[in-house]
Amino acid sequence: PNKVREIWASGGVVKNGWLALESTMAAEGMASVGWDSCTVDLQHGFADELSARQLFQTIGRFDCTPMARVAWNDPAKIMRVLDDGCYGIICPMVNTPEDAAMLVKNSKFPPQGERSYGPQRGLLYGGADYAAKANETIINMAMIETREAMSNLETICKTDGIDGIYVGPSDLALSLGHLPAGVPTNAEVVGAIEEIVRRARDCGVVAGIHCGSVEMAKDWIGKGFQFVTVYTDFVAMVTKARENLTALNE
Amino acid sequence: PNKVREIWASGGVVKNGWLALESTMAAEGMASVGWDSCTVDLQHGFADELSARQLFQTIGRFDCTPMARVAWNDPAKIMRVLDDGCYGIICPMVNTPEDAAMLVKNSKFPPQGERSYGPQRGLLYGGADYAAKANETIINMAMIETREAMSNLETICKTDGIDGIYVGPSDLALSLGHLPAGVPTNAEVVGAIEEIVRRARDCGVVAGIHCGSVEMAKDWIGKGFQFVTVYTDFVAMVTKARENLTALNE
Amino acid sequence: PNKVREIWASGGVVKNGWLALESTMAAEGMASVGWDSCTVDLQHGFADELSARQLFQTIGRFDCTPMARVAWNDPAKIMRVLDDGCYGIICPMVNTPEDAAMLVKNSKFPPQGERSYGPQRGLLYGGADYAAKANETIINMAMIETREAMSNLETICKTDGIDGIYVGPSDLALSLGHLPAGVPTNAEVVGAIEEIVRRARDCGVVAGIHCGSVEMAKDWIGKGFQFVTVYTDFVAMVTKARENLTALNE
Amino acid sequence: PNKVREIWASGGVVKNGWLALESTMAAEGMASVGWDSCTVDLQHGFADELSARQLFQTIGRFDCTPMARVAWNDPAKIMRVLDDGCYGIICPMVNTPEDAAMLVKNSKFPPQGERSYGPQRGLLYGGADYAAKANETIINMAMIETREAMSNLETICKTDGIDGIYVGPSDLALSLGHLPAGVPTNAEVVGAIEEIVRRARDCGVVAGIHCGSVEMAKDWIGKGFQFVTVYTDFVAMVTKARENLTALNE
Amino acid sequence: PNKVREIWASGGVVKNGWLALESTMAAEGMASVGWDSCTVDLQHGFADELSARQLFQTIGRFDCTPMARVAWNDPAKIMRVLDDGCYGIICPMVNTPEDAAMLVKNSKFPPQGERSYGPQRGLLYGGADYAAKANETIINMAMIETREAMSNLETICKTDGIDGIYVGPSDLALSLGHLPAGVPTNAEVVGAIEEIVRRARDCGVVAGIHCGSVEMAKDWIGKGFQFVTVYTDFVAMVTKARENLTALNE
Amino acid sequence: PNKVREIWASGGVVKNGWLALESTMAAEGMASVGWDSCTVDLQHGFADELSARQLFQTIGRFDCTPMARVAWNDPAKIMRVLDDGCYGIICPMVNTPEDAAMLVKNSKFPPQGERSYGPQRGLLYGGADYAAKANETIINMAMIETREAMSNLETICKTDGIDGIYVGPSDLALSLGHLPAGVPTNAEVVGAIEEIVRRARDCGVVAGIHCGSVEMAKDWIGKGFQFVTVYTDFVAMVTKARENLTALNE
Ligand SMILES: [Mg+2]
Ligand SMILES: [Mg+2]
Ligand SMILES: [Mg+2]
Ligand SMILES: [Mg+2]
Ligand SMILES: [Mg+2]
Ligand SMILES: [Mg+2]
Repeated sequence: PNKVREIWASGGVVKNGWLALESTMAAEGMASVGWDSCTVDLQHGFADELSARQLFQTIGRFDCTPMARVAWNDPAKIMRVLDDGCYGIICPMVNTPEDAAMLVKNSKFPPQGERSYGPQRGLLYGGADYAAKANETIINMAMIETREAMSNLETICKTDGIDGIYVGPSDLALSLGHLPAGVPTNAEVVGAIEEIVRRARDCGVVAGIHCGSVEMAKDWIGKGFQFVTVYTDFVAMVTKARENLTALNE
Repeated sequence: PNKVREIWASGGVVKNGWLALESTMAAEGMASVGWDSCTVDLQHGFADELSARQLFQTIGRFDCTPMARVAWNDPAKIMRVLDDGCYGIICPMVNTPEDAAMLVKNSKFPPQGERSYGPQRGLLYGGADYAAKANETIINMAMIETREAMSNLETICKTDGIDGIYVGPSDLALSLGHLPAGVPTNAEVVGAIEEIVRRARDCGVVAGIHCGSVEMAKDWIGKGFQFVTVYTDFVAMVTKARENLTALNE
Repeated sequence: PNKVREIWASGGVVKNGWLALESTMAAEGMASVGWDSCTVDLQHGFADELSARQLFQTIGRFDCTPMARVAWNDPAKIMRVLDDGCYGIICPMVNTPEDAAMLVKNSKFPPQGERSYGPQRGLLYGGADYAAKANETIINMAMIETREAMSNLETICKTDGIDGIYVGPSDLALSLGHLPAGVPTNAEVVGAIEEIVRRARDCGVVAGIHCGSVEMAKDWIGKGFQFVTVYTDFVAMVTKARENLTALNE
Repeated sequence: PNKVREIWASGGVVKNGWLALESTMAAEGMASVGWDSCTVDLQHGFADELSARQLFQTIGRFDCTPMARVAWNDPAKIMRVLDDGCYGIICPMVNTPEDAAMLVKNSKFPPQGERSYGPQRGLLYGGADYAAKANETIINMAMIETREAMSNLETICKTDGIDGIYVGPSDLALSLGHLPAGVPTNAEVVGAIEEIVRRARDCGVVAGIHCGSVEMAKDWIGKGFQFVTVYTDFVAMVTKARENLTALNE
Repeated sequence: PNKVREIWASGGVVKNGWLALESTMAAEGMASVGWDSCTVDLQHGFADELSARQLFQTIGRFDCTPMARVAWNDPAKIMRVLDDGCYGIICPMVNTPEDAAMLVKNSKFPPQGERSYGPQRGLLYGGADYAAKANETIINMAMIETREAMSNLETICKTDGIDGIYVGPSDLALSLGHLPAGVPTNAEVVGAIEEIVRRARDCGVVAGIHCGSVEMAKDWIGKGFQFVTVYTDFVAMVTKARENLTALNE
Repeated sequence: PNKVREIWASGGVVKNGWLALESTMAAEGMASVGWDSCTVDLQHGFADELSARQLFQTIGRFDCTPMARVAWNDPAKIMRVLDDGCYGIICPMVNTPEDAAMLVKNSKFPPQGERSYGPQRGLLYGGADYAAKANETIINMAMIETREAMSNLETICKTDGIDGIYVGPSDLALSLGHLPAGVPTNAEVVGAIEEIVRRARDCGVVAGIHCGSVEMAKDWIGKGFQFVTVYTDFVAMVTKARENLTALNE
């Protein structure tokens, strides 16, 4: 069972916690809040593969799907987190249907893919039928974050084994020629995101997005996104600390 | 130079960041916010002595006094953080003037104390005159957090080498027979804190306090506290994450 | 709730896994086997306090009481593991009723003891009522492992707050003038252990023992022990590896 | 000198210990048992590159060839473990002669390959003539674990610089359309392994295999394998722990 | 601002410290000596990506440009150190203009490259205008260390976004058919280095070199190199320790 | 066997390497130089107990006695390093014969002391007869570094189980009222050291000393010291790096 799949199946919206910090206590604190899933960020976050495993182990006692944003669409990197019991992959820079097919190849056992077998923690977390069930349990989300990806959106979404897409607004902004912003206000960027969610849903895949505020997340949920993240644990900490210091200084 | 000493000398209030997380990124995030000092909590926080050193190294580039709350009034533990360039000790459970004298003995080189010499990072951080200046630079704050400590408050405060006291409201509440609360409302606890700050100031030492909210901190600043902490980096993160999830679910 | 307490209350025997290895994967492997409790050994094992926390976090998803054998009857060391969600303390070298009283003082909040408050992971693991429930939930086992302890056995067992004793056969053998052995066969040592379990049960506390083999554990269960450990995860690994190599070489 | 090469030269069988755990104590325990070689598994095991170095350092005092199964046939990953004094590479998913040639290119200095120079620990472990001797000392084993690899077996084995092959039965089973099993019983899988060892030996390279039991290893030794592994340190620990708990519960 | 750029702009020579050790104390010790830049070696050094970040954090308080020699010309590896506030990349094995263009693509945000956005520590270290300034601040040095690279030297140097080259004498020696030497004396190797510096300067890029002694560095500075490294922190330690032991034994 | 004991028995001088750095590569580099013993400094050095074990494991392959300077004369701290295979204790601040007796009690199994049994790595390193041989193999050196210690020198040296003393010149200087200096020139300090070595030898124990230069070490060897250390690995690195940068700048 995968809570994210279940929420999607019922038409609901997944609220995802984002784990940038490499601390197991930070991870347990995040999971305790009640996110439907928690995603360890191995691209721009601070954990490495060894500490990521400990984060997965820590959040294992919560009713929260363990996911990872990998650093690259690379078989060794994707295999590593899946071995460690990760149930969902968010893969950056999926710009072509070939990239999407590569993601599926990297994340599924034969015959659907070429993932190598040896999931020691996968077996502990998933149980004895892990090998038989993994291909249908684990989720693949392709990040749409370049102009090129937008031009290939339909073929990416229709790639067999892709469950959803995830919008990276900062990289998308840069790719479209604008500076990144936590909450995009540039019309071209906002328009692109609107186009992505509409077309993803038309293709029958779930759309997710990384948000710089709660308001942004709620706006995009209103437009059809079913998987939202509000910045990261690290940014939450810094934001609250800054609010507190500012208030103390007033 | 020690920023905390300078602020106190000018009659100001030190806003202290509290580092519970063992992550160097969390520490850098906290220091970047602009706290006057940052205190690594080796008692109830998550760092150990080795990672504490890395936290001190990380915050070394900010204009922020590096401090530690040690786990115990123990010569090896106090020597360790001082060796690593810590410029202020917050020592738990100082209940008697003997405890206070022990803290001074543990934190000062001869002839004022019996701290052992070998401050490798102290020399890198403090400079070549570290040995000559350490005893006057480093701050000692004694935690007042039991009924016994209150009954010895004056002799603790007047112990030579004690610069300030730090109130631990949760332990104080327990010692007085009440459940701990982030923001104490119990009249006996609140009354005790009022008594502490008044008497500490009468003795000529600075009073500090651990607070469960900005409002609590501002209230106590109004009553004479010159060193305030608003919970921890960890609690800041969890608080903000919970606020965000709650808002998403509304 | 504490599974160990519940088993004892029903008159059953706790099968305890012993975590010497500092690896979170080793801990998850051990917990997955189904031990009623798992004890992180901070005295002769390989974890330190920071990695011990990660072991507690890892085994948190199993129905298995998290326990620790601390390195010493020291308030800072006992506070540390309790803060991290440990629900049972096995304390070495409890040789006198004063030692036993010190253990209780170190492990219980006021008014029963002097444990300092700040259980961040305790709250995540134990829930919001942790402060109110900790004193009755957490277990204290005093190690009886010297001739002196035997001479004080009754007063140790009757110390308020002591829930059980744990026999350390190797140190007991050394103290009685014999070489340590995983499975003691020396008559004086065996006789001493028989005396300990009989008198502990007479005092109304549970008896536990560290065993060098399954057979030894079953023998002692037959004589009234209700808490048994069969060596360690590390010894299990080495034993099996040696069996395998020997069989390959035959 | 490389003990594995020497055993092979004398027609003997190498008994290889498999290090999945990231713990240096686990590694020292394994090496102490007397394996001819110990292989750090960087593909499905738990160490990362930094901890792998510490495992190599730890086993350095034993008469045991240090080897690594790398995560991927990648120049940076292979260079890393060789720099750290590893004397044998087991490379996964060598499916074509091009893959085999890439492995050789990645593991040998010019002119035989393109390995980059900078073996700090290699020099400490191997001595001052490390640069001159490394290409002839270090072993390359290509993993044969797909249908494609079987179809290219001869050209892989005859690739200059390949010393042996290593069968991965689980991935081979998956590739052939069957579920993985620690001890394969599926006739197609068993038949494939028989074919591999026969043809490898015909090509003049050593054959190795990963086994799920001692019996399996002995069977395959009987059919010509000269390098056998019996599961992992982690599986040894869990297996023994489970045996013990089961026996306690009987 | 980037101290290395500024020194180059003034026609000066950068003295670079090389961090092989994974220890934050070693890094702080090195930075304290006064190097203009310190380079974390992720190819042949001992840090991994997580510890590299802590090294960058540690040296952040010194007036010293943080640089990295990455393990490979790989987008994920280059992105990682840049995210962590690294201001200069030394990239091994740049053998063709395509390799050089790939380095630029990996290290610059669009539109100059394809670096993905998410520089959490970059923002803390570089400030709020990091995104706007990074492409012009960060330095790219291509390692020239093969015969092939020499044959493509001009096109590599003229690749847009390449600021300098860095000679790896050991790999260059191996590629030219000679054994590596800390201080090359082989005429072909020395001649090749002379050719490289001359042609690099003709192309308008800075030349740097890794040296086995102070004398070697001074010689090459005399021939136009503007960026020199004298072995590593690790070699410095071993060299001095050996000098001391030898002197004791005399 | 203990190389240090053997050298002393033959009237020779032990040249001891001092490991301040927490890096296993630094430790292997130091041990490779050929010191008779290497001492992990857990008082003023950078390793903690867990990393100290890895340093002991790393140097285990060299003919070099593993020693530790513990942070305090504390049973848990001394037991920890001995469990990990350390063969010599240097204990700070032994000021009285009671301190000396405590050191012996902490470091020897019954009946000579009260060390608790459980030396997992001791058994791997020392062999099956470890328990029987440890008390006679392991060395105890008491640090003489205060005026009080000097006044008790004879009773300290004659304490049963004390094998030698180790002079800490910096703390001794502070205790005598002078600033610490790597190479003491103050007449009172120098005179005190001369007195210590003379009286220690009269009592029949070996004298050791921490030195700030090779010259200082040779001078003191000439006056009877049989165990000398020349600063630390960390200071060696910084010293050499500074020499190199200075030479580059000339
Ligand atoms: Mg992105
Ligand atoms: Mg408190
Ligand atoms: Mg014991
Ligand atoms: Mg495989
Ligand atoms: Mg090179
Ligand atoms: Mg000293």
